[in-house]
Amino acid sequence: MSDPVDTLVRGTLVNVHTGCLEDGAVAIDDGEIVALAERPAERIIDAGYVTPGLVDAHMHVESSMVTLPEYGDAVLPRGVTSVVHDPHEIANVLGEAGVRAVVEDASKTPLKARFTVPSSVPASSLQDAGATLSAETVATLLDLDRVVALGEVMDIPGLLAGDDEVHAKIAAARDRGLTVDGHMPGVDGAALHEAARHLDTDHESITLAEARARADLGIRVYLREGSSSRNLADLLSLVDAVDSRRLSLCTDDREVVDVVDRGGVDFAVRKAIEEGADPVDVVQMATLNTAESYGLPFGRIAPGAPADLVLLDDLESWTVAHVMVDGELDPTGTDRPGTTNLATDTVDFDPVAGSDLSITAPDVTGDTVSVRVIDAVGGLQTDAMAADVSVDAGALVPAVDEDIVSLAVIERHGRNGGIGRGFVHGLGLRRGAIGSTVAHDAHNCVVAGADPDSMARVANHLRDVGGGIAAFDPDAAEMAVLPLPVAGLMSDEPIETVYEGYERVETLATDLGLVDSGLMELSFLALEVIPTYRLTNRGLVDVEAGEHVDVVRS
Amino acid sequence: MSDPVDTLVRGTLVNVHTGCLEDGAVAIDDGEIVALAERPAERIIDAGYVTPGLVDAHMHVESSMVTLPEYGDAVLPRGVTSVVHDPHEIANVLGEAGVRAVVEDASKTPLKARFTVPSSVPASSLQDAGATLSAETVATLLDLDRVVALGEVMDIPGLLAGDDEVHAKIAAARDRGLTVDGHMPGVDGAALHEAARHLDTDHESITLAEARARADLGIRVYLREGSSSRNLADLLSLVDAVDSRRLSLCTDDREVVDVVDRGGVDFAVRKAIEEGADPVDVVQMATLNTAESYGLPFGRIAPGAPADLVLLDDLESWTVAHVMVDGELDPTGTDRPGTTNLATDTVDFDPVAGSDLSITAPDVTGDTVSVRVIDAVGGLQTDAMAADVSVDAGALVPAVDEDIVSLAVIERHGRNGGIGRGFVHGLGLRRGAIGSTVAHDAHNCVVAGADPDSMARVANHLRDVGGGIAAFDPDAAEMAVLPLPVAGLMSDEPIETVYEGYERVETLATDLGLVDSGLMELSFLALEVIPTYRLTNRGLVDVEAGEHVDVVRS
Repeated sequence: MSDPVDTLVRGTLVNVHTGCLEDGAVAIDDGEIVALAERPAERIIDAGYVTPGLVDAHMHVESSMVTLPEYGDAVLPRGVTSVVHDPHEIANVLGEAGVRAVVEDASKTPLKARFTVPSSVPASSLQDAGATLSAETVATLLDLDRVVALGEVMDIPGLLAGDDEVHAKIAAARDRGLTVDGHMPGVDGAALHEAARHLDTDHESITLAEARARADLGIRVYLREGSSSRNLADLLSLVDAVDSRRLSLCTDDREVVDVVDRGGVDFAVRKAIEEGADPVDVVQMATLNTAESYGLPFGRIAPGAPADLVLLDDLESWTVAHVMVDGELDPTGTDRPGTTNLATDTVDFDPVAGSDLSITAPDVTGDTVSVRVIDAVGGLQTDAMAADVSVDAGALVPAVDEDIVSLAVIERHGRNGGIGRGFVHGLGLRRGAIGSTVAHDAHNCVVAGADPDSMARVANHLRDVGGGIAAFDPDAAEMAVLPLPVAGLMSDEPIETVYEGYERVETLATDLGLVDSGLMELSFLALEVIPTYRLTNRGLVDVEAGEHVDVVRS
Repeated sequence: MSDPVDTLVRGTLVNVHTGCLEDGAVAIDDGEIVALAERPAERIIDAGYVTPGLVDAHMHVESSMVTLPEYGDAVLPRGVTSVVHDPHEIANVLGEAGVRAVVEDASKTPLKARFTVPSSVPASSLQDAGATLSAETVATLLDLDRVVALGEVMDIPGLLAGDDEVHAKIAAARDRGLTVDGHMPGVDGAALHEAARHLDTDHESITLAEARARADLGIRVYLREGSSSRNLADLLSLVDAVDSRRLSLCTDDREVVDVVDRGGVDFAVRKAIEEGADPVDVVQMATLNTAESYGLPFGRIAPGAPADLVLLDDLESWTVAHVMVDGELDPTGTDRPGTTNLATDTVDFDPVAGSDLSITAPDVTGDTVSVRVIDAVGGLQTDAMAADVSVDAGALVPAVDEDIVSLAVIERHGRNGGIGRGFVHGLGLRRGAIGSTVAHDAHNCVVAGADPDSMARVANHLRDVGGGIAAFDPDAAEMAVLPLPVAGLMSDEPIETVYEGYERVETLATDLGLVDSGLMELSFLALEVIPTYRLTNRGLVDVEAGEHVDVVRS
C-alpha cells in the first residue's frame, strides 16, 4: 500500500452513507476508490465539494431526441454519471431488437446507462405499434447485462385483474432478483394497496398526498422533474415528512431544449436545493437511494466503489468543476465510431394524398355534420367535445375558425395498418400543418392541419427523411423539419444540431398559430391509454370505454 | 377485493419505510400483508403497537447450545422472527455436511433462519479442526436456499495480502449478488480502508471511534449485544451521529442463560430504547436496515411482504403480546419430529489417562522448571506469562497455589491429532477439573485442572456422552455435565433442560474455585488466532508470531 495511487481528490466529501459532510480525500487507483484518506498520488486534484456522480432514477432518452452517447455528452459535464433508462419508445418501434441495440449503445458512452425492460409494449390493442414484447421476450431481455429492473408497469387494470402476461413479466423480474418499476398515475384507494403488493417504485405522483400514500405503502417514490411533468416543487416537502432514504429524483422525460439549457437530473438537484431541501438529503436522493433501489454498485463514495465523482466549486448552486467516471476526469465519447446501433429505416408507409387524410361526409342532409372532437386542454390531457363541421366536396371540413383542425394517424411500421382520421380542438393552428413520428406510444405518424394537402405534405416529407418533426406553411411554401431517423424518434446528430432543428420547427409552428408546448401535445394525441379521446391509426378511441367510436355522431 | 381477508391487525404501526408511527391496520391474507387499511376480516386483532418481526443481523446459534428449532421457540415469543445465522462452529466440526444439515434444520422452525456460509474454516493450520471449507465448497454452499452472504471474513491478513482462497470466496459471493460479512476487530488505518474495498459489514466495533471509522467507509456497522461481547451502550450514540440507515443490531453470541432470562436481539432493542435511542430508529436497525443488508423480503410492514409482525402492548418497554409469522399467530415448532439433522457422533478420541495430560519434565537439574503460561486475563483475551513449576515423578506439576493449573487440548475429530499440553493462569481453580468440547474454533476437547487424573475423568466423560461441558470435584467424587451431543456443541434437549444443565456445571465449577465467566473463558483458550498465548492440540501457540512455541523455556 505504499505505492502511490494514480489520483487523489481532496475536498469536502458528501458522504451519502453517513449523511455527513467531511473534509477529506478520495484515493483512486485504476478507476476504483481505494481509500478515503491521504495517499501518495501521481495526480492531486483539489475540489471544493465532492459528491458521487448523479444517477437519474428513471428516464427515457428518446424524449431528448438524441442517442444515448449524445445524451451522455450533454449531461456528464453537469455531474450526471448514470441514468436508469427505460427504452419504452424504442421498444414500441423496434421491439426486442431495439432494446438490444440501445443496450449496446451504452458501451459507446462513459455515461453509465442501466436499463429497465419495457413491460407494456404495445400500450393496447387499439393501435398498431411496431412491435410486441411478450412475457417470454421480456424474460430474455431481463437477462441482459446492464438491465436492472422491469420497466414501469402501466397496465394497472391488468395487474389488478390478475392478467397472466402482466404477472408473468413481474415474476420473471422477481426470479432474477430485479426491481419492478410501477407507473400509477392517479391510482388510489384499494387499487393502490393492491398494486403495492407487486410494484416497487412509482414516479407518477403529482400531489403530496399521492406521494405520501405511496411512501406509506413502502413504494419508493421518485420525485420527477421532467419537461412535460414538473412535480418536484409540489412533492419536495415529503423529504421532511418521511425518512428520505426511499425517495429518489428522476426526470422521466426531458426535451432536448431543456437538456441543453437546464440539464438532466442535475436540474432537479439544483432546484430541490433552491427550494430549501438539505443538500445532503438531495444528493442522497440522486445517488445512494437510487443505487439501493436497483442494486447499483456506484452512487456512493466508499472504498471498493468505482470512482464516479462530481467535483464542485459550490454545492448549493451545483457548480461543477469536473466530473470523473471510473477515475477518468471529464470523460467524453467524442471519438466513438457512430453513435448508435439502432435502426434508421423505420418509417414505412405509402405516400399519402390530401384526400387520404379527410373524412368522407356521411350520406346525410344539411350543411353540417356533428362530430366527436379531441379537445386538447393542455398538458397531456384531453377532453371529449362535440362540434359541427361543414361539408365540402363530399368531405368534412375542419372548423379552423373555431380552433378545430384535422388530425390523422398513419400507421408507419410497414404493417399496412391504415390511417385514422379525426378532429382536434385547442392546438391554435390557423393554417398549414404539423406532424411527428414521435407519437406515444405506438409512434405512428401523427399529423394535424388546417387543410389536408398541407397535412399530406408534412406526412410525406417525414416519410422521406425517415421520421421526425415537421411544420409546413402553405403561404410561404416553407417546410421546417427536424429529421429523427433513428427509429423515427431520435437524431444521430449532435445535440446542438437537434436543439436548433427543434427550435426551427417550433418557430414555424408558432407562426402557424400553434400553442405553447403544442408539439409536445401533438405527440400525445395518439396515446390511447390516457383519457379522454385519442386517435390511433384504427380510428378515434374513447379511452374510458376502452373502444373505438365513430367520429361522426349518429 | 371485496372478499374478507383472513386477519386484520389494528394498532399504531411502526412504519420502518417512512420512519413514522401511524395509527392504522394491517390486512393479512394467506400469510401476506395485502393492504395497510381497514378490510372486512374473518379475525380482528387489536394491538397497541405493531412492528415488523425482528431480525438478528448476525448470530451463531451454537453459542446458545441448543438447536435452531429450540432457539426459535425461545426467541419467537419475544418478537424475533428471523436470524442471520453463521454456522461457523458447526462448520469447524462437520464441514460442508454440517452447513447443509443446519440449513435443513431451518425448515423445522417458524423462525426464518437465513445463513451465511462460513468463510474461515479452519481458523489456522496450527490446530486440527474437524473440517476444511475450500473456496470451491464455499461456492457450492452459497447456492443453497436461505443463504444470503459469505460469513464473516476473519483472515484479514490474508485478505490484505491477496490470498487466493480468501479472494476466491469473496468473488463467489459477489458473482451471486450476495453480501460479504466482515470480521475486523481492531483493524484500523490503511488496513481498514483496504478491507473496506472487499467487506460489506462488521460487527466487531468496541469503541465509538472504531464504529464511526467503519461507517465513514460505507461499511454497515452492526451494534452487538451478545453474552461475551456487549458493545451496544458504547456504540449507541452513533445512531445520532450518522444516518442510521446502515446500522443494525445483532447478538453474535448469546449464552443459553442469557437467551432464556433476557432474550435474543429483542434484548438489544429493549436496551437501546432504555439507553435513550429513538424507538423507531431502533426498530429500523433490527428490521429494515438488516433486511436491506441481505436483500431479505421481510423486516417491513408493507403490502407484498410476508406478515411477520410483533404485536406489542407497549413499544418503549418492548412488551410483546403476540408474534405473527407468515400470518400465523404465535407459531411454535413443538410438534416437529426431531429438532436437528446434525450429527451426534462427533467426539472421537481414545480414552486418556492422567499421565497422557501431564508434561514430562525435561532433563534438567533443580527443583523447578521455567515454563510459558497462558494468562487468562478475563474476557476473551490472554497475555503471555512465565512461571516456575515443580517436578514430581518426572512430570511438571501445576502451581495451583499461584492459580496456575494444567491445560490440555485433545483432538476429538477422529484424526489422531494428538494432545497439546500447557498451563493456564487466572481461572481460579483450586481442585478438580473442568472441560468442554466447545472450544473455539476447532472445537477439540479442552480440559483444565488442578490434577491430571481429574482432567482425564472429565475428558473421558465428555467422550462418553458425545461432547459437552463438565466439571469434576475429586473430593466429592461428583461429576456435573451438560451433554452436548449435537456436533459436540449443542444439545437436542429443550432449552430449559440445557439452561439447568449449564447452571449445574457452573455451580460445581464455582465450588471448585472457577472465576465468573470461567467456562466461557475456557472455551476460548484454544482459539489460536486471538493474542497472545493459546493452546491447540498441537501445542502452545504464540499468536503474534503465528507459530508453536515450547512450554518449557529454554
